[in-house]
Amino acid sequence: MSSGNASNVPGIITCKAAVAWKAKKPLTIEQIEVMPPQKGEVRIKNLFSALCHTDAYTLDGLDPEGIFPVILGHEATGIVESVGEGVKSVKPGDYVIPLYIPQCYQCEYCKNPKTNLCQAIRVTQGQGTMPDKTVRYKCQGKDVYHFMGCSSFSEYSVVCEISLCKIESSAPLDKVCLLGCGISTGYGAVINTAKVEAGSTVAVFGLGAVGLAVIMGAKQVGAKRILAVDMNSDKFELGKLYEEVIMTYASNILVIFLLAKQFGATDVLNPKDLKDKVPAQQYLVENFDGGFDYTFECVGNVEVMRTALECAHKGWGVSVIVGVAGAGQEIKTRPFQLVTGRTWKGTAFGGWKSRDSVPKLVQQVIDGSLKLDGFISHKFPFEQINEAFELLHAGKALRIILTNSTDASISS
Amino acid sequence: MSSGNASNVPGIITCKAAVAWKAKKPLTIEQIEVMPPQKGEVRIKNLFSALCHTDAYTLDGLDPEGIFPVILGHEATGIVESVGEGVKSVKPGDYVIPLYIPQCYQCEYCKNPKTNLCQAIRVTQGQGTMPDKTVRYKCQGKDVYHFMGCSSFSEYSVVCEISLCKIESSAPLDKVCLLGCGISTGYGAVINTAKVEAGSTVAVFGLGAVGLAVIMGAKQVGAKRILAVDMNSDKFELGKLYEEVIMTYASNILVIFLLAKQFGATDVLNPKDLKDKVPAQQYLVENFDGGFDYTFECVGNVEVMRTALECAHKGWGVSVIVGVAGAGQEIKTRPFQLVTGRTWKGTAFGGWKSRDSVPKLVQQVIDGSLKLDGFISHKFPFEQINEAFELLHAGKALRIILTNSTDASISS
Repeated sequence: MSSGNASNVPGIITCKAAVAWKAKKPLTIEQIEVMPPQKGEVRIKNLFSALCHTDAYTLDGLDPEGIFPVILGHEATGIVESVGEGVKSVKPGDYVIPLYIPQCYQCEYCKNPKTNLCQAIRVTQGQGTMPDKTVRYKCQGKDVYHFMGCSSFSEYSVVCEISLCKIESSAPLDKVCLLGCGISTGYGAVINTAKVEAGSTVAVFGLGAVGLAVIMGAKQVGAKRILAVDMNSDKFELGKLYEEVIMTYASNILVIFLLAKQFGATDVLNPKDLKDKVPAQQYLVENFDGGFDYTFECVGNVEVMRTALECAHKGWGVSVIVGVAGAGQEIKTRPFQLVTGRTWKGTAFGGWKSRDSVPKLVQQVIDGSLKLDGFISHKFPFEQINEAFELLHAGKALRIILTNSTDASISS
Repeated sequence: MSSGNASNVPGIITCKAAVAWKAKKPLTIEQIEVMPPQKGEVRIKNLFSALCHTDAYTLDGLDPEGIFPVILGHEATGIVESVGEGVKSVKPGDYVIPLYIPQCYQCEYCKNPKTNLCQAIRVTQGQGTMPDKTVRYKCQGKDVYHFMGCSSFSEYSVVCEISLCKIESSAPLDKVCLLGCGISTGYGAVINTAKVEAGSTVAVFGLGAVGLAVIMGAKQVGAKRILAVDMNSDKFELGKLYEEVIMTYASNILVIFLLAKQFGATDVLNPKDLKDKVPAQQYLVENFDGGFDYTFECVGNVEVMRTALECAHKGWGVSVIVGVAGAGQEIKTRPFQLVTGRTWKGTAFGGWKSRDSVPKLVQQVIDGSLKLDGFISHKFPFEQINEAFELLHAGKALRIILTNSTDASISS
């Protein structure tokens, strides 16, 4: 598909990116070079990026397979700048969301309706490279690795065509970036993985954006009782945290974010408040009609995963692991918990087949049936990314949107 | 419903029973007294009983909640001898199968189509008594406990009405006793719990009667590949074990039993044969197209449960725990196994709602669509029950049927 016309061949772009040189160190804003997209690849300009705990997890050195230097970021909206040979599904100027789980439509997984885990580029994506095992980023003469196939903490990034979906140009681009990971994950865990029915009882452990998206989904499908559990009681309803955020970050804040009760939680529990140190699962079974029809672990803590399973109702309770645990950690329970009718599942990206589903979710945002405003607590200029990570770590933010500036220079 | 007519009030029956006086000791055949059935209870004459590993598990002292002295046994066919006040669903002379999971039609569990775990008499059944917290058996002047609500290793036993289903009198009574536990469990795990589809791949760990029933069910629904796994290669196909049984027990044997390959296994594996001590799950994933659509653990070993989960296919594999693990033991895995699409479930009595389903399974036996012959390796007089247990322990039997004699005396 290469035209042979040199003026049409994309050149190297020099632009800003937040480079993670090593684990446990702040990111540094650097000038980087972004190579032209190769066959089957697309170069996009990232317009808005959100911070996700998975970025923080890797930056904190908790992922033993994390590779540095790397450009993190995987929740974004962008616009196609140029396309490589053979790319047909998008063209320059199209608005897109990069997808850390691709959809190739060819592999055994894409052809199976039971899973969304396309395996087409799994190995090289995990190794931080494009499928040809090389990278498209250079900084100070050194190769810089890709992250989750996205690397949206750069003004420009190169992603595989199968890792992109085209979205309506009328979409609120500064919000739908959230559909690239957390919100879709929590919402899909309810809709696709657990398939929660109207009238069900639900417990959600962990009230970050993913857990709140679970609450939103549970309310939407008509759950009759939704328990929100967190060790930080500030996350239960608008109050101290909300006021603190408004006072401290007035200039950067979108004062529209919501907390568990506003999203639909009917009950809240801080396990620290349990008297007599009764195990949380025992308390929950005894005080919530024998346990919940559906439970969701959105923390990434293996002990909480056990609690979530064991407070699912005997006979029919389903517990879904949404959070990502630390490397090498194991979940445990007595098999009797499963033999007596509980089911233990997990979800990745909420079970959505990414390229098919994300444009539909965007459409729901446009038509108002899916609301994202409540998940956004802050908006920062891209350059303040380290401040944004600090807020995330401190538990004083929901989703933070980074706005990329536009002063990239294109050399051809 | 009591007639007030003394001649119609059932009296105490003196009959034979195999009493387990304490753990780890052989049973002793004793004269016992069986009290009349009380309100909501039924006294039945057990015609045929089969031995199940759960009986052995308790007799071996492995159940920390096991209570002695007790009359074991829970796979039987019987005939109603007398009924207590209010009993309407059966009458004297009806053929019945006792059910260790009852169906009361009233409790929250019975009303929920997702579960078969009727809770109506769970607590007292677990404590070895009838719902009024007393027992119906006496031996040498001492109270003897009930077992799993059945106690079929007695000529007569008293069970709750909700723990009985009436079956067609034309049923082969010496075979359909197997539907009281093991065969229904394995078959139902496939049909109800896993819902295996035609064309699926299946792995079965443990080739006792339950595991063989899983294979039978998997073949029936059209599984395209069925792997049978056991540490004893004699269980893979008719051969050494079969010949040995025929030679040694010719007088008591029904030479019709079948093994894994005859039931439909397409592949067999003895983990002891794995070279280089590669973990079984790794070997299975690498050699069976990434793993199996459905796996079933029919051993009761927590390490095998982990293997069964981890060799279920990424993205959509479902692993069902059918075996009963030792007290206090825990299953473990990395949560990543679930997040990447595997589901961990369990089953009790194969998910069948007992009184609704067992008569239908009996009908399938009558019409020939469900075949039980292949599960029966031996038939012994009731008095040889200890010999039967030894065979079961030695792995030299499938299901052993005990035939009760009829010399009970009824005192009124």
